[in-house]
Amino acid sequence: MSENNREKQIADHIQRDPFAAMLNATIDILGPGHSRVSATVTESMCNFNGTIHGGIIFTIGDMAFAAASNSHGRTAVAMNVNINFIRAAKPGDLLVAEAIEQHRGGRTALYDITVREGGSGELIAQSQGRVYRMDDWFVPPAETAD
Amino acid sequence: MSENNREKQIADHIQRDPFAAMLNATIDILGPGHSRVSATVTESMCNFNGTIHGGIIFTIGDMAFAAASNSHGRTAVAMNVNINFIRAAKPGDLLVAEAIEQHRGGRTALYDITVREGGSGELIAQSQGRVYRMDDWFVPPAETAD
Amino acid sequence: MSENNREKQIADHIQRDPFAAMLNATIDILGPGHSRVSATVTESMCNFNGTIHGGIIFTIGDMAFAAASNSHGRTAVAMNVNINFIRAAKPGDLLVAEAIEQHRGGRTALYDITVREGGSGELIAQSQGRVYRMDDWFVPPAETAD
Amino acid sequence: MSENNREKQIADHIQRDPFAAMLNATIDILGPGHSRVSATVTESMCNFNGTIHGGIIFTIGDMAFAAASNSHGRTAVAMNVNINFIRAAKPGDLLVAEAIEQHRGGRTALYDITVREGGSGELIAQSQGRVYRMDDWFVPPAETAD
Repeated sequence: MSENNREKQIADHIQRDPFAAMLNATIDILGPGHSRVSATVTESMCNFNGTIHGGIIFTIGDMAFAAASNSHGRTAVAMNVNINFIRAAKPGDLLVAEAIEQHRGGRTALYDITVREGGSGELIAQSQGRVYRMDDWFVPPAETAD
Repeated sequence: MSENNREKQIADHIQRDPFAAMLNATIDILGPGHSRVSATVTESMCNFNGTIHGGIIFTIGDMAFAAASNSHGRTAVAMNVNINFIRAAKPGDLLVAEAIEQHRGGRTALYDITVREGGSGELIAQSQGRVYRMDDWFVPPAETAD
Repeated sequence: MSENNREKQIADHIQRDPFAAMLNATIDILGPGHSRVSATVTESMCNFNGTIHGGIIFTIGDMAFAAASNSHGRTAVAMNVNINFIRAAKPGDLLVAEAIEQHRGGRTALYDITVREGGSGELIAQSQGRVYRMDDWFVPPAETAD
Repeated sequence: MSENNREKQIADHIQRDPFAAMLNATIDILGPGHSRVSATVTESMCNFNGTIHGGIIFTIGDMAFAAASNSHGRTAVAMNVNINFIRAAKPGDLLVAEAIEQHRGGRTALYDITVREGGSGELIAQSQGRVYRMDDWFVPPAETAD
């Protein structure tokens, strides 16, 4: 299996996300240890204050986190996320989440996750996320491929 | 305004949550500093591993957190949530989130949030959440009512 | 090896903590998944505001967390701690930290940690802590003992 | 008061830290929203596993966090810190902590904090910290000076 095929298989797996589809969120960048996800948020995603629900902001960040942490083809599951909410988002905003790998060890890995409003670039939320790396590879490791 | 009317106004405000409606989540208990929220989760709420999306688990916990922290009639906005994911949830599970006030000060308040599978009682996730308490009361304080 | 000897060996191991000794912190309770630690804090433990250093409050909580998570005889190392500071502590306060196991799985375990002022019982800080459980048992498991 | 005098007064205030002195920690860089702190850790700072106590790693990071968040002359107090421990540190290591402001608002501010081993540059811990900004300025704001 060529490296290009491997990357395509990983991207195909990560994009099969029913809840992402429900939110119209798309993966715009996916590379080793890095991902960017975006979605335009709507009235139906508001909370009782009329601003975008914290759960939506978390979820868009979580999609970038899941994509980045699974980008190596090995199954990674979230153990811990700490999110700091900075600014409210409002219906019509384009939310852009970016996750960047800070450390990857044998058993755990750590990611920095930011969510910004795409037009202004203003910070909406900033998180740290830690995954547990399972023994399972959903796409075989590159070293043993071919 | 009687205390009963006050509680009803607070509950009415908190239940006007479009995203909660989209997830069919309901507030089952709402008292001062305490709330319980539940939702039966479905296939459309899964991630690419076929388990319930972390964003859904966060969101159901966040609804309990928002309800408990706004239960006094004063607007509270989430600053920070730290979530530990313990067990995967699967389509068909009834998720039950409970938020309990640990401390309430003039400017901030702290909540313990648990999400369990309703049938087995098994722990799905456990969080701490901190809010900033705004000057705004969406229902006037009891002391000044009448 | 009797169960009593096992508990004594575990306690002996956990109490060999040079930094705890430097702070005059003592383990007052140690049971399976539970620990209480206390220390009277002093002028030399202050920060530049004249209140007790956040690092001292964290450390006393961390000692309870380490004791509770290692109380089974299996080496547990901290992966993540989220601490919420609630009230300042001052020189002369007796700080009492309590850690209680919320979940223990094969690879990770989760603890709730509170630090209170011993006289008034007022909450100083509240934390969640997650450990990774190593393969190493510093005291052999009870099942295989004798 | 000149801007230079202001910076000196701020640095003088921040360096009056008794617990930092006990650990022989020094502030190597202090600028607006930025600080670097270092300390060589010793046998007496170990836990019962013979590695450097998590409380020491937290504390050195916390010193950088406190310096960066108070660097504007306005009193900032820690509300929340989330720390991810990545690698153990050992006696003799030079620990270098760096805190960088990610956001500063009217009431709260957010910092990214890393602790590395100074020789190898290896990541020991990574944190997010959030402060509450008090009304009190320990050095008057620049705008009103002179």
